[in-house]
Amino acid sequence: MVVIGGDGSFADAQVFSEEFGFPIVGIPGTIDNDICGTDYTIGYDTALNTVVEAVDKIRDTASAHNRLFFIEVMGRHAGFLTLYSGIATGAEAIMVPEITNDYDMLNTFLNSAHKQHKTSSIVLVAEGDELGGAIKIAKQAKKDHPEYDVRVTILGHIQRGGSPTATDRINAGRMGVAAVEALLKGEQGIMIGLVRNQLAYNPLSKSKKGKRSLDEKLLDLIEILSI
Amino acid sequence: MVVIGGDGSFADAQVFSEEFGFPIVGIPGTIDNDICGTDYTIGYDTALNTVVEAVDKIRDTASAHNRLFFIEVMGRHAGFLTLYSGIATGAEAIMVPEITNDYDMLNTFLNSAHKQHKTSSIVLVAEGDELGGAIKIAKQAKKDHPEYDVRVTILGHIQRGGSPTATDRINAGRMGVAAVEALLKGEQGIMIGLVRNQLAYNPLSKSKKGKRSLDEKLLDLIEILSI
Amino acid sequence: MVVIGGDGSFADAQVFSEEFGFPIVGIPGTIDNDICGTDYTIGYDTALNTVVEAVDKIRDTASAHNRLFFIEVMGRHAGFLTLYSGIATGAEAIMVPEITNDYDMLNTFLNSAHKQHKTSSIVLVAEGDELGGAIKIAKQAKKDHPEYDVRVTILGHIQRGGSPTATDRINAGRMGVAAVEALLKGEQGIMIGLVRNQLAYNPLSKSKKGKRSLDEKLLDLIEILSI
Amino acid sequence: MVVIGGDGSFADAQVFSEEFGFPIVGIPGTIDNDICGTDYTIGYDTALNTVVEAVDKIRDTASAHNRLFFIEVMGRHAGFLTLYSGIATGAEAIMVPEITNDYDMLNTFLNSAHKQHKTSSIVLVAEGDELGGAIKIAKQAKKDHPEYDVRVTILGHIQRGGSPTATDRINAGRMGVAAVEALLKGEQGIMIGLVRNQLAYNPLSKSKKGKRSLDEKLLDLIEILSI
Repeated sequence: MVVIGGDGSFADAQVFSEEFGFPIVGIPGTIDNDICGTDYTIGYDTALNTVVEAVDKIRDTASAHNRLFFIEVMGRHAGFLTLYSGIATGAEAIMVPEITNDYDMLNTFLNSAHKQHKTSSIVLVAEGDELGGAIKIAKQAKKDHPEYDVRVTILGHIQRGGSPTATDRINAGRMGVAAVEALLKGEQGIMIGLVRNQLAYNPLSKSKKGKRSLDEKLLDLIEILSI
Repeated sequence: MVVIGGDGSFADAQVFSEEFGFPIVGIPGTIDNDICGTDYTIGYDTALNTVVEAVDKIRDTASAHNRLFFIEVMGRHAGFLTLYSGIATGAEAIMVPEITNDYDMLNTFLNSAHKQHKTSSIVLVAEGDELGGAIKIAKQAKKDHPEYDVRVTILGHIQRGGSPTATDRINAGRMGVAAVEALLKGEQGIMIGLVRNQLAYNPLSKSKKGKRSLDEKLLDLIEILSI
Repeated sequence: MVVIGGDGSFADAQVFSEEFGFPIVGIPGTIDNDICGTDYTIGYDTALNTVVEAVDKIRDTASAHNRLFFIEVMGRHAGFLTLYSGIATGAEAIMVPEITNDYDMLNTFLNSAHKQHKTSSIVLVAEGDELGGAIKIAKQAKKDHPEYDVRVTILGHIQRGGSPTATDRINAGRMGVAAVEALLKGEQGIMIGLVRNQLAYNPLSKSKKGKRSLDEKLLDLIEILSI
Repeated sequence: MVVIGGDGSFADAQVFSEEFGFPIVGIPGTIDNDICGTDYTIGYDTALNTVVEAVDKIRDTASAHNRLFFIEVMGRHAGFLTLYSGIATGAEAIMVPEITNDYDMLNTFLNSAHKQHKTSSIVLVAEGDELGGAIKIAKQAKKDHPEYDVRVTILGHIQRGGSPTATDRINAGRMGVAAVEALLKGEQGIMIGLVRNQLAYNPLSKSKKGKRSLDEKLLDLIEILSI
């Protein structure tokens, strides 16, 4: 059996596998891209492009007004989708669960941005940010920065649908074939991943532990590209 | 001078026109499509398609779960965008400022839908609904219908951006040429509109008064198409 | 029975209807938008937007080079799709079956455009143009205008697919309901159309005869908008 | 100076660099993805998704008829874009410059497909295929397989435009920052690439030599996924 999902699905599958003596191979599939043992999870690239297209549309009206847009992106425990879509859209700031002082950083930025007469700012907020989602943070920002016209977009389940991108299809094809080949060779209890764009094989159990951390280099890119 | 906008812009323009003796012709431009003297306003078709694409993506994941999605659509005083996107996407229900008992109707629907084991429901909410926006209504629904997994999307300013559709471009071209021709003929203080897809000329002052009402026939379509 | 299609399908359906005593109501569905008794046919708006998006992408690279792009649009007997997408994209010229001296007009335009150092030109060609499709016309233009770098795109069946636009869905819903209501009332042998955006009822036989002609006013718009 | 382009641009830049003593760093940018010293070139992911969306639309009408679609994809000397879009869309066959007996393979496939009553087939043809482009191959196929209704789409410059995908933006950001950092460190005459999704630094001169070959594993995927 081939299981596509995250650590929850894999844990369920393993119980099932042990009970019934079924061979199981996992393929990582979640838009959060936060599974250990792989750099990439199926669905992530599609969700990323969906967020980027949405933010682009908001950017179209952002140039004309002194506005502060908070856009909530999926990710209860991980800020990958938020970080990468922030880089791709040149977001002025991001707020993710992995960083705890991001509201202070936003405050500093907004104070200086207003002084510099920068027209509008776009802030991407991971739904799992420690301060709460976009609604809560927007309320606080409205209070602290009455000079901005604050608006909120919550993308929600838009990020889980849509026609898959080329990358998601090709990688799904590559991992699917590898999973079937692994089963034919008698392997089981493993997860097929992509590490540096090469097929990788790890014990399913390993995929459950820990979370991948955000790349410091990319966090710096947000600052460089948004100036 | 040609002014593209809603009743606010037209009022400002007219003051300006009277003060400085400037000839002015208006073209209706708002995603709300609620200006008197025209069936169509520039930007509306693009916003409508943006909403439809977003709801389609949510529908992709709606089939698998017992979920209740509330999607907030723009429209502070008018439900046009919500009604038409509701028809186009087969929404299970809509909530608009023009209808006051829509929460009761939703309740009735949800009670029967749950009994019929309908998997998921999509409800489009105009931001100007008399009960408040999607967040407030979702909270109430969660309390009244604990059997549903309630989720919220707020489309926000996504609806104001994006590349214009063919209809918006063609109609903008037709109305733009008509506006220039009217000015050349010495006319002024009029708004160029499209009534039944034909160019229409009305006094600018008329565009300020009243609001167009929703078509009963189309309100019925929501019920017919969502079953 | 409700038949969605063009004059061919309607003719077949009517034979069938007369032979078996079946009541039949037609709904116009073709991307050519060339059926008498209706201003609009299902699928047309989706195809139109597909063409517009494709031409926009070509326009992205058209600014930098001295290029002449011929883009073939569907329409064996009718230039509607070509004319409207030409207006929507600001095409420099169109070539349609309804106009016979369009290659001469193109020649005149290209001579003056080159002298004016206009960077690139986009010409939309209906596949049914009397001179043949884009490949044939491009060959001739290459010979007559060696100063241009000539490129061809043939959109082909891309224009027949894709997710339907809001307008196509809403109008399909309106006409579908009208068709069922007509059958319930005992009517038959009619086609449901939209004339000036209002439901229209015509004998099916009428839909077979003649073709709609292109609007002179819109043909002028091509020249006005492309300058 | 940072140069974005292919081997032609790099060669020009190097002449310029040597003559004027300018430090130069290159970033690979071409939709062909055929530059040595990098797995990825800017623009490739956007073009790939454009092709995939176009083929998807053709697939929408491919199910109903006994049709044979030839779709010409860019690539004068390289089949990367054709191969990857073929995998992503489940194309029945591809024809690329790197494979010389592909028309024979297509013949064999079409003979068996017709016997198996497979409804329609989609064949992606790289413009640089040794047999010529899609038009020429389609003519031959029409002669050899009169049982199919043969249609041609030439995507052309559609593939060079459009809003960039998330991957193209993020990688452009990563490589752009790396290029500036390299210049600040006093490096020059190098190309910034991405090898296995990690930044790679190679002499600019190396990027000119040779071409990357197609991955055998992926060529097999075409056959596996199209069955």
